[in-house]
Amino acid sequence: MTSLAVDYHGGGRFKPRSYEPTEPASGEVRIAVAFTGICGTDLKIAHGAMDHRITSPWPIGHEMSGTIEALASDVTGWKPGDRVTVMPLEWCGQCPACTRGHSHVCQNLDFVGIDSPGSLQQHWNVPARLLVRIPDRLSLEHATLAEPTAVAVHDVRRGGVEPADQVVVIGGGPIGLLIALVANHIGADVLLSEVSSFRRGLANRLGLRTVDPASEDLPTIVAEWSDGKGADVSFEVSGSKLGVLALTDVLAVRGRGVVVAIHTEPTPVDLMAAFWKELDIRGARVYQRADFEEAVDLLAAGVIPAESLITEVVPLSMTEQAITRLASGEDIVKLVIDSQ
Amino acid sequence: MTSLAVDYHGGGRFKPRSYEPTEPASGEVRIAVAFTGICGTDLKIAHGAMDHRITSPWPIGHEMSGTIEALASDVTGWKPGDRVTVMPLEWCGQCPACTRGHSHVCQNLDFVGIDSPGSLQQHWNVPARLLVRIPDRLSLEHATLAEPTAVAVHDVRRGGVEPADQVVVIGGGPIGLLIALVANHIGADVLLSEVSSFRRGLANRLGLRTVDPASEDLPTIVAEWSDGKGADVSFEVSGSKLGVLALTDVLAVRGRGVVVAIHTEPTPVDLMAAFWKELDIRGARVYQRADFEEAVDLLAAGVIPAESLITEVVPLSMTEQAITRLASGEDIVKLVIDSQ
Repeated sequence: MTSLAVDYHGGGRFKPRSYEPTEPASGEVRIAVAFTGICGTDLKIAHGAMDHRITSPWPIGHEMSGTIEALASDVTGWKPGDRVTVMPLEWCGQCPACTRGHSHVCQNLDFVGIDSPGSLQQHWNVPARLLVRIPDRLSLEHATLAEPTAVAVHDVRRGGVEPADQVVVIGGGPIGLLIALVANHIGADVLLSEVSSFRRGLANRLGLRTVDPASEDLPTIVAEWSDGKGADVSFEVSGSKLGVLALTDVLAVRGRGVVVAIHTEPTPVDLMAAFWKELDIRGARVYQRADFEEAVDLLAAGVIPAESLITEVVPLSMTEQAITRLASGEDIVKLVIDSQ
Repeated sequence: MTSLAVDYHGGGRFKPRSYEPTEPASGEVRIAVAFTGICGTDLKIAHGAMDHRITSPWPIGHEMSGTIEALASDVTGWKPGDRVTVMPLEWCGQCPACTRGHSHVCQNLDFVGIDSPGSLQQHWNVPARLLVRIPDRLSLEHATLAEPTAVAVHDVRRGGVEPADQVVVIGGGPIGLLIALVANHIGADVLLSEVSSFRRGLANRLGLRTVDPASEDLPTIVAEWSDGKGADVSFEVSGSKLGVLALTDVLAVRGRGVVVAIHTEPTPVDLMAAFWKELDIRGARVYQRADFEEAVDLLAAGVIPAESLITEVVPLSMTEQAITRLASGEDIVKLVIDSQ
């Protein structure tokens, strides 16, 4: 059985590779990979921005689905044919973060698909402890959204969003949309700020209220919407300096601002507003197992409209071209690679 | 009875004024002011930096102590001779912050001594609801530290400091010292970072461990001190850009960083660290009544060594000169004005 993998070689280059699938090692299963979603971090990798982390050629990819095809003899609770996704976090269990109950942000975290090989290959051996079951009513294609939805579930949990809270999401890419949908589902009143008319249009079709911060004054709109109170929770998902300033600007006294986007350089924050309104600015990164399982449930229940978010599916052999096109075009929401 | 007040006239100018004390209006008491402490905000006022808030000539001053000398007929629970301090916050009770339980950061807050007349006068009429009793064993001079100590108690509460937490305080002025002392008192292990050798010397004499961030690498010291974990809580009390970067740098995964100092311009924050370590950056402003009462108790119990912190007492008539000297010299910790 000869299979195809697409290795990332650094410098923004991908290369196909033929390989013979191996038997799963102790504790592992081998998955016949079905689909892999491409995310913003994958794009950063493809731009060479994370070459310091990816030390040798291997496939990236961490938003995936597939079917178990082989198991090591010591793996229990799973059988061939089980439909699964992978929660791509391997923690050390030893560091202060792990021993204090924050293993998802382990100080030595191995993010599978970045720090170790990922799912852009047809047959993938992974530790069984990372598996999450995909229910029958959720398609393998839609299940690729479990990982980004888990991010959104975790972000909303970090923000302490409660029913009837007024929530502002700054940035309407895939994660921003998912945060808005998850917050909306638990009963919050959500406003999504996004400069792209394409993305605003999609958000509107999904029932979300949107603002174009380039043509409207977001803080004024939030003040009117909230009768002068401000938002209870805001999420910075734009990765922009204006987004960071808006994060605090829109918040109510004692509001919670969640930093979701990655800002690689120190970025100006309105600390006067943080002080004056006693704000709480919280970083949120990846997810815990409960977030991931809830994400699968939300997808299976149709709360997350995967059909509308996955706008393109391309074969594994076309990975490099697809990623290049995703990076250049704003009319793709979620691109999924088909390894079948 | 002719009395002396020192009015602030804007532009950094103070002028003495003679006046006849008036009878307290409904709900008020008249206090024979004993002492008034001068704080960093008073210095800002004296530099003209807050002239937009102080709209007409009146005395500033909000860290005070005195004795009730007259009461309106409708005031109960107090009598002439009672020794008191004033919690200088007047909230509206109507705005979203007030109705949601955060009246201390009311959206229309009147900070008495800034937004309305303060205690740099000999006889001061104030609403009885602002009074806090000074116990017999606490001197009037030392009681002027109740207000800044209440700030520190509130900051430590906002930081969620618990016994055995490792706490880094960045900036060793009066508030930084008080935060360190309060955190220390509840059982935290405290490291104070301060560039002034005078201030470090005082902190050392008060039993605090100090670091000079200009000659030592604070994050390295914190990493060693905490066996690679980082600090559980950090406080930015320096008002400097380096302090803001250190705030996140020293923290453990899920650490809490409290923004105490005022940063009037948006200031670069390491949001990558906030994201990566899932930090919680919280603004903390003024205090609630429970903080103020605890501050009085800590002073009365001798936990706060007022004797060592109040380094200078000058008469009311010398206010302007004293403030000028305080602004220029770093060898004064707390300056107190005597109105008796």
